Amino acid sequence: MRVLGVDPGLTRCGLGVVEGEARALRMVAVGVVRTSSERSTGDRLAYVQDELDAWLDRFEPDAIALERVYAADHVPTVMTTAQVSGLVHLAGARRGLPVTLHTPTEVKAAVSGSGRADKAQITTMVTRILSLSEAPRPADAADALALAICHQWRGAGSARRELAAASERARLRSVAR
Amino acid sequence: MRVLGVDPGLTRCGLGVVEGEARALRMVAVGVVRTSSERSTGDRLAYVQDELDAWLDRFEPDAIALERVYAADHVPTVMTTAQVSGLVHLAGARRGLPVTLHTPTEVKAAVSGSGRADKAQITTMVTRILSLSEAPRPADAADALALAICHQWRGAGSARRELAAASERARLRSVAR
Repeated sequence: MRVLGVDPGLTRCGLGVVEGEARALRMVAVGVVRTSSERSTGDRLAYVQDELDAWLDRFEPDAIALERVYAADHVPTVMTTAQVSGLVHLAGARRGLPVTLHTPTEVKAAVSGSGRADKAQITTMVTRILSLSEAPRPADAADALALAICHQWRGAGSARRELAAASERARLRSVAR
Repeated sequence: MRVLGVDPGLTRCGLGVVEGEARALRMVAVGVVRTSSERSTGDRLAYVQDELDAWLDRFEPDAIALERVYAADHVPTVMTTAQVSGLVHLAGARRGLPVTLHTPTEVKAAVSGSGRADKAQITTMVTRILSLSEAPRPADAADALALAICHQWRGAGSARRELAAASERARLRSVAR
């Protein structure tokens, strides 16, 4: 299965594609779409939509994992983040791709084993899980990959897969020490 | 000038087209796009986008007036309202149409002379300003027309137009008594 993870945002939108099975995930692509606050909201959304479409055309994921945004979060940017999330839902609907929401806590727990892991811990685990030669930067890129990993490990909802993921996490954490 | 007013929402999205000059505004069309909460967010957004596109194709407005939504408002629906607002910004950008935001207070003040007018007062004034034979229903439809009227009266930013609007409001209020 190939999953596109999206960390939505209008200034920076993280995109990460991960494919494989629970014990053998690999990164296909990672990137960040940036738009300038000097442009109109509509132009910025159009640019993000064009980039998102280009990624979907190029990498043809089977599913999209999107961060669930709460109205109480990050108040100054919550409206634009919701707008970008809307574009992701829309793209999924237009292409018949399932869009699954994961909360930041679920993503942290899936990747690191703790729902309260900090950004550095998430980046470290993402780097190890995907056997990357260097840590993905910026944080939005790592978060998008973490979402895709979370979906690979949680999304299938199979007990066997959950167990494999837990075992893989434990192995990688011990390696990290 | 022909203006499409949009009262954004995913369950109900009000649309109203108003054209003319300050003292002679007329309604071209009014309606409400409804989607069921039983469908996925993506399917609902796609339906709203299709309807919005159909309205823009059919009525060819020169400008779009959109209600400004604040993160603090209506917390349970603020995320989906922001997503629909994003589609409106996007449609404007794709078609080269200006999208102007007006706050609820601005709209109320423009239509009724008071930023604290209630829904019944707004509906009454919209009905009179547009010389409608009956009041537009539901409130989302009246709100969309009020947005378009507000834009006609405020949007041009000309002192002459503001004066004409104030005079027209005063005349219609006195008729309403």
